[in-house]
Amino acid sequence: MPFTYQRTVHFADTDAAGVVFFANYLAICHEAYEEALAAAGIKLSEFFRDNGIVIPVSKCEAEYLRPLLCGDKVRVSIKPRALAENSFEIAYELTRLGPPDKGAAKVRTEHVCIDSKTRARSPLPDALAQWVRSG
Amino acid sequence: MPFTYQRTVHFADTDAAGVVFFANYLAICHEAYEEALAAAGIKLSEFFRDNGIVIPVSKCEAEYLRPLLCGDKVRVSIKPRALAENSFEIAYELTRLGPPDKGAAKVRTEHVCIDSKTRARSPLPDALAQWVRSG
Amino acid sequence: MPFTYQRTVHFADTDAAGVVFFANYLAICHEAYEEALAAAGIKLSEFFRDNGIVIPVSKCEAEYLRPLLCGDKVRVSIKPRALAENSFEIAYELTRLGPPDKGAAKVRTEHVCIDSKTRARSPLPDALAQWVRSG
Amino acid sequence: MPFTYQRTVHFADTDAAGVVFFANYLAICHEAYEEALAAAGIKLSEFFRDNGIVIPVSKCEAEYLRPLLCGDKVRVSIKPRALAENSFEIAYELTRLGPPDKGAAKVRTEHVCIDSKTRARSPLPDALAQWVRSG
Repeated sequence: MPFTYQRTVHFADTDAAGVVFFANYLAICHEAYEEALAAAGIKLSEFFRDNGIVIPVSKCEAEYLRPLLCGDKVRVSIKPRALAENSFEIAYELTRLGPPDKGAAKVRTEHVCIDSKTRARSPLPDALAQWVRSG
Repeated sequence: MPFTYQRTVHFADTDAAGVVFFANYLAICHEAYEEALAAAGIKLSEFFRDNGIVIPVSKCEAEYLRPLLCGDKVRVSIKPRALAENSFEIAYELTRLGPPDKGAAKVRTEHVCIDSKTRARSPLPDALAQWVRSG
Repeated sequence: MPFTYQRTVHFADTDAAGVVFFANYLAICHEAYEEALAAAGIKLSEFFRDNGIVIPVSKCEAEYLRPLLCGDKVRVSIKPRALAENSFEIAYELTRLGPPDKGAAKVRTEHVCIDSKTRARSPLPDALAQWVRSG
Repeated sequence: MPFTYQRTVHFADTDAAGVVFFANYLAICHEAYEEALAAAGIKLSEFFRDNGIVIPVSKCEAEYLRPLLCGDKVRVSIKPRALAENSFEIAYELTRLGPPDKGAAKVRTEHVCIDSKTRARSPLPDALAQWVRSG
């Protein structure tokens, strides 16, 4: 079973077309990633800052299926998969909760672990590698 | 008892100083306002768009007491109070959950109900006026 | 010659890792799109709201090449291309200005013109179709 | 003459009411602050991160006078003033450019210089103190 994260669409997520701004779908996916890491025991305030090792998003792609309005409930399912010793991808499915539930978007991100000074690739930290394998 | 809203600080809320960007405290307060309205039965997708009547924030002020880090849990308490037939204020208290709990910010917003075409003041819609009175 | 847009990286664009949050690269690209449309004589306040016809982003993808810091100067070049009577794509190249200049990201968005009520596909408005052809 | 900063309202600044989200006025003011510091020779990527000394916003207030739409041109004037050896305030005026020009908002921020570890107050760095005096 993939990890899932649920939240309500906020007014600040929306734009003048009345729906969630396209880039904010990606921010919502990142929230799901954060919650999944926290649930795996990883301390976010340490993980998401530059402490010598950083694991930035190296690629992302999104396919938008339905608009989301302020107040809508969204569920994000999240599935990590290893790509190499120092990289992994995450597949996200966003569902607008109903009834009936409706697919809202499919998103994919790739992440690469690097030394923040040299930019050289570096193996994933153990706790992260374990979370990726658990996906 | 004031309405309270709780959420986790997200990575997207933070800035390069490592803590929540000052303007994002206000966005978090607005989320609490939205949740309070939804709990009072107000449909957010209708309420927060221009349907002839709009109720923009006319003033805000914030006092920052403590930084918030990615992963921190924040509780926002929210207390509305009528100012006039067509305006109200909301007092928010943000608490970083511990233990020990610590005050993180105090925020106040003022809201004025206006006709979106003429910009003339207009009485609060009934459901909103009732929510304000309940504060 | 593609249209180019230049701006400075703001503090609000960054996150606790000290660099621009990945989703904000897409927001910067959208700014370039807006500037290109404005330069083509399209009125943005009309274009980017729901007036019966909307032209949402239907897909996007990004490849991140280099981090961007607060204060960095970024140039975005933007090239539209028609995909069908009712859709088009835009290719963006983000360059961190030096010297030396360095590629910062490559982004692609797809846009589909639809009737906002029925969600049926609709031909691009003339001014937009002309801008796409000019790319 | 106060320092002024001008920029176009972006789609990402707006919300589902069709106008700039109230918290984003503050982010636009911060951009003006950044530009003023850069014009005074301060390196932003160093200044706005935690390097032992941080200078967070300790208070802010805003009065909203007019809505801002996507594509609007906004000019921000910015005037700093010393409050103490370790703190200062900034007054901002936002003008929607016309013709005719119209006041859009008045904003004030307070900033306190502190040691990021001990949270004890610390004198303003020289370059910043000089910029504040020049206001």
